[in-house]
Amino acid sequence: MIKKLIESIKKTQAPICVGLDPNLSFIPEELLKNAISEYGETLEAAAEAFWQFNKAILDAVADLIPAVKPQSAMYEALGLPGLSCFKKTVDYAHEKGLIVIGDVKRGDIGSTSKAYAEAHLGNIQLGSAALTPFGEDFCTVNPYLGSDGVKPFIDVCKENKKGIFILVKTSNPSSGEFQDQSVGGKALYELVADKVNEWGEGLLEDGYSPVGAVVGATYPEEGIKLRKLMPHSFILVPGYGAQGATAKDLKGFFNPDGLGAIVNSSRGIIAAYTKEPYKEYGPGNFAEAARKAAQDMIEDLKSCM
Amino acid sequence: MIKKLIESIKKTQAPICVGLDPNLSFIPEELLKNAISEYGETLEAAAEAFWQFNKAILDAVADLIPAVKPQSAMYEALGLPGLSCFKKTVDYAHEKGLIVIGDVKRGDIGSTSKAYAEAHLGNIQLGSAALTPFGEDFCTVNPYLGSDGVKPFIDVCKENKKGIFILVKTSNPSSGEFQDQSVGGKALYELVADKVNEWGEGLLEDGYSPVGAVVGATYPEEGIKLRKLMPHSFILVPGYGAQGATAKDLKGFFNPDGLGAIVNSSRGIIAAYTKEPYKEYGPGNFAEAARKAAQDMIEDLKSCM
Repeated sequence: MIKKLIESIKKTQAPICVGLDPNLSFIPEELLKNAISEYGETLEAAAEAFWQFNKAILDAVADLIPAVKPQSAMYEALGLPGLSCFKKTVDYAHEKGLIVIGDVKRGDIGSTSKAYAEAHLGNIQLGSAALTPFGEDFCTVNPYLGSDGVKPFIDVCKENKKGIFILVKTSNPSSGEFQDQSVGGKALYELVADKVNEWGEGLLEDGYSPVGAVVGATYPEEGIKLRKLMPHSFILVPGYGAQGATAKDLKGFFNPDGLGAIVNSSRGIIAAYTKEPYKEYGPGNFAEAARKAAQDMIEDLKSCM
Repeated sequence: MIKKLIESIKKTQAPICVGLDPNLSFIPEELLKNAISEYGETLEAAAEAFWQFNKAILDAVADLIPAVKPQSAMYEALGLPGLSCFKKTVDYAHEKGLIVIGDVKRGDIGSTSKAYAEAHLGNIQLGSAALTPFGEDFCTVNPYLGSDGVKPFIDVCKENKKGIFILVKTSNPSSGEFQDQSVGGKALYELVADKVNEWGEGLLEDGYSPVGAVVGATYPEEGIKLRKLMPHSFILVPGYGAQGATAKDLKGFFNPDGLGAIVNSSRGIIAAYTKEPYKEYGPGNFAEAARKAAQDMIEDLKSCM
């Protein structure tokens, strides 16, 4: 899958992924009104509005980009109908030829992590049938439980040619509270990075490992350091746009080969119509606004590759 | 909710919760066969078998215990039908008067943590309707992202009178890899414990805070230390039974008032029929075996309270 990601980034010349994190606060009123008139004031209605929103966004941006990143929290917040929308979104993105990064940040003790890994990257065997629960291509993983919480994900990756991104240094303001703590002369996030490197050993394809890392664009200095500590890992970089980082903060996340990073933007693209300079599109043309914002982001990141 | 948990523990004299972590490896064949004959070799069939299994377990143990802890990974591994079973299990446990701890180990940046918190402990407002996505009473939270990843859970707890258990020192063998790292003269898990204490300040009910902690029964010495660091937090203690810990390891997790800990057993109870001394029950009486195992666990833990 890492090979496919690299090919797709080279083809689109766009090291970006679009975060599909729909939210009732910016779903165009018309979509929501239509859904409520069909389903009433229910979770089904909200999920239907999310689905129509995602579908239009995917139709508008699929030819520009290699990957999308649906954030599971937004769908879980709408209960079962929301998760049904999550699954439809994964499937539709695949139909459109896109790679899907499930931003699920799961992680547990061994046997339980195995279940999460199968849920998102693998299959369940029942009698003679191999059944696919959610079927993303990559997912994000929380390392707090240590190696035996992470390894089941790597095993499932090996079996199914999938990949993971492990939280190393997250983009939020208080990420340093635990991640920056000094342990034996280095920051905890550096220790996690060493492990990311170790976990990926022997699994390289085209120079990159299926064990990637999440490092926030909001921490460019740490990005430069972490780039060197994990030379064979792709870095998934959130925090561009809405969270404040710009292209000049991103150069250091890339390797000299112009690869090694994929930068995410969620609201900056999917809710572009709510903000300048895309406001003129209006809510009726939210998908066109998203396309323009994606094009502008690709242009902005040209200097990084 | 912490008040209700305390009342319920006092009433049942059982500081335990039963982990509802069904797994195809120990679901009685008969249940699975019936489900497959109705739904074919599908995720629906596996989820139906889980549901019949859970329902029988809940019927058998509900009068003995204060709480159950469904592990979301096991349900996610069966995709949408699995999550539908998760929701039915939460609802049925509530019908039976039980407190439900969603073992979801979620955690993300602020706005996303808010969505997770609403998914599991809160409501979604749509027009005039307040809709409940999953509706557990407590959930588990991963602290790796720091305060701004945890606080949205606490806000939703305050609004809805719910509670959380934050991963402090997990029960798995490699939990020490990051959690035991020495930071400024103390272990990282102690620093997390200090935060748990701080996050719960000003929120006490009957002497306990809605911000609890997860500390594995497999680390009894750490348990004693952490008990003192978080005097007002309930500790959710996994690792009893199947993971190897026994009652003598658990005394130190309790406060002198006999409260402050709730000990989980999953396979040790729900899969009791597969192991001595409960094997004689056989797969046809798996629920009776679970009831006996729960009674034995309650008896075993009497010395701790």
